[in-house]
Amino acid sequence: MSLRVVFLGTGGSVPTSSRGLPAVLVVRKGEQIMFDCGEGVQRQMVKAGGGFHRKMKIFITHMHGDHVLGLPGLMQTMALLGRERKLDVYGPPGITEFMECIKETVQFALTFQVEIHELEEEGIVCEETEYFVQAAYANHVIKGFAYALVEKPRPGKFYPEKAKALGIAEGPLWSRLQQGHEVKLKGGRIVKPSEVVGKPREARKIVYTGDTRPFKNLKKLAAGASLLIHEATFDDSLKDRAAEDGHSTPSQAARDAKSAKVERLILTHISARYEDASKLARLVKQAKKIFENTQAAEDFMKLEIPLCDD
Amino acid sequence: MSLRVVFLGTGGSVPTSSRGLPAVLVVRKGEQIMFDCGEGVQRQMVKAGGGFHRKMKIFITHMHGDHVLGLPGLMQTMALLGRERKLDVYGPPGITEFMECIKETVQFALTFQVEIHELEEEGIVCEETEYFVQAAYANHVIKGFAYALVEKPRPGKFYPEKAKALGIAEGPLWSRLQQGHEVKLKGGRIVKPSEVVGKPREARKIVYTGDTRPFKNLKKLAAGASLLIHEATFDDSLKDRAAEDGHSTPSQAARDAKSAKVERLILTHISARYEDASKLARLVKQAKKIFENTQAAEDFMKLEIPLCDD
Repeated sequence: MSLRVVFLGTGGSVPTSSRGLPAVLVVRKGEQIMFDCGEGVQRQMVKAGGGFHRKMKIFITHMHGDHVLGLPGLMQTMALLGRERKLDVYGPPGITEFMECIKETVQFALTFQVEIHELEEEGIVCEETEYFVQAAYANHVIKGFAYALVEKPRPGKFYPEKAKALGIAEGPLWSRLQQGHEVKLKGGRIVKPSEVVGKPREARKIVYTGDTRPFKNLKKLAAGASLLIHEATFDDSLKDRAAEDGHSTPSQAARDAKSAKVERLILTHISARYEDASKLARLVKQAKKIFENTQAAEDFMKLEIPLCDD
Repeated sequence: MSLRVVFLGTGGSVPTSSRGLPAVLVVRKGEQIMFDCGEGVQRQMVKAGGGFHRKMKIFITHMHGDHVLGLPGLMQTMALLGRERKLDVYGPPGITEFMECIKETVQFALTFQVEIHELEEEGIVCEETEYFVQAAYANHVIKGFAYALVEKPRPGKFYPEKAKALGIAEGPLWSRLQQGHEVKLKGGRIVKPSEVVGKPREARKIVYTGDTRPFKNLKKLAAGASLLIHEATFDDSLKDRAAEDGHSTPSQAARDAKSAKVERLILTHISARYEDASKLARLVKQAKKIFENTQAAEDFMKLEIPLCDD
């Protein structure tokens, strides 16, 4: 079961011919988990073959227009297509008022429930059976969050031959052991899970920074992530401008990736000034000097994050 | 001096790969006059080479999301690019509240003035030296307007040879005559403008219906228009659905074009169900049976409306 990451919009605050406004879609077992929802997302979804009826959660990093203005139109289209499933929207303070004002002033006839989760503080903001989403304060010019989608650890690999050697026949006891419970055999011998099961396997983690300067807690949030999607609005030569506007440079993103020991770094929220391929290449090169497994996002780029075995 | 019409979005309520949400841009002597402003307009502007700093007016037909949700993002981008010129926005009741709520809930730092003209009733809603814009109640499911951009008649053609034959030498008297004033010659003879100037030349008129069922006043609004941009959401076979949802069919649009004696008809607000070329062709064919000079709009289609000479 692979996780699919689809970059729906990879531009900075102003869209270009090739880059739409920020949005990243993660598809996990048919569920869609979206990070940011810039203007034009619904059309990018149409082009990328996204679903309007699926189970879906949207996480907004901060209340700047380029990260949130795709929400009303996306909801309108879902309604026009007759969506019935609830939509969950998570975001910083202000998200409720924004949604309310849109519903009051633009003519809407929603066919489904929208549950808004206005986040007051960082921490685990959403928990499902198999994963959770953690928010950490980012460091932009307004309050906002970076998010980590974290799969819960999966049980270790089960070794049937070891179980059989201990005289445990295939059946309910195998399941109990794999689920981490001790088992008492007829002769009184107690078998610990560690005798027949490998150590729990690391699950996947995808981190999305939103707009931010480098911030200390990212190292913890992104520790060991399969994928770090980090903004890199300006190249290294505009480091001061980046700091002033609450953004990051490729080198800063790469240092974060390195210190958090992530597997892969994708730079996004690319300013329109790097539309030219050679300029974009310079941006990526700055990051690669520090963290080799780096790539710049492109609209409609798809990544598959496979399950890692132990 | 030609009028340029650029179709920025020609889709119905839901965008498709090839059609964005509704917006038509008219460029007249460097000024931009936009009709409707659907989500994604700012990016369509980037692609079409539109300007973010130019003198500009936006006319919204009605408050459905697909016609108005491009406004906040367009304004944000204008601000990010440092626009200083005032932007004029005209629209139906509700437009002020919408703009206010966006400014309050999405972080905006406008660098320019936005003047909102909330239209209470039909009539001339904007008058400039060389043109005016007239609104007429449309007939959709909510209150809305169709708009006509009407150039004021230009003075007739001046005939120098006729003036010379009357003994009037080139000079200030020629100007006075062309501007419609009588002139008294030295011998006492009074020359009327009609003796040396042709009849006033028809100026151009462009009409944009927005979403609407056929409505009686369109005939007057569009009378003699150079261009009628009429919605045709559904083809003739879905006439009942069109009536129910407040839309028009190609035949209805064509009948309006014919009875208003317009020069050219462009169908727009094309539903996603006609994405296939053969289905679109059927739609156009239905209109052409009644009004031959008909075409379906396409995103980024550009039309030049030349000045007509007498």
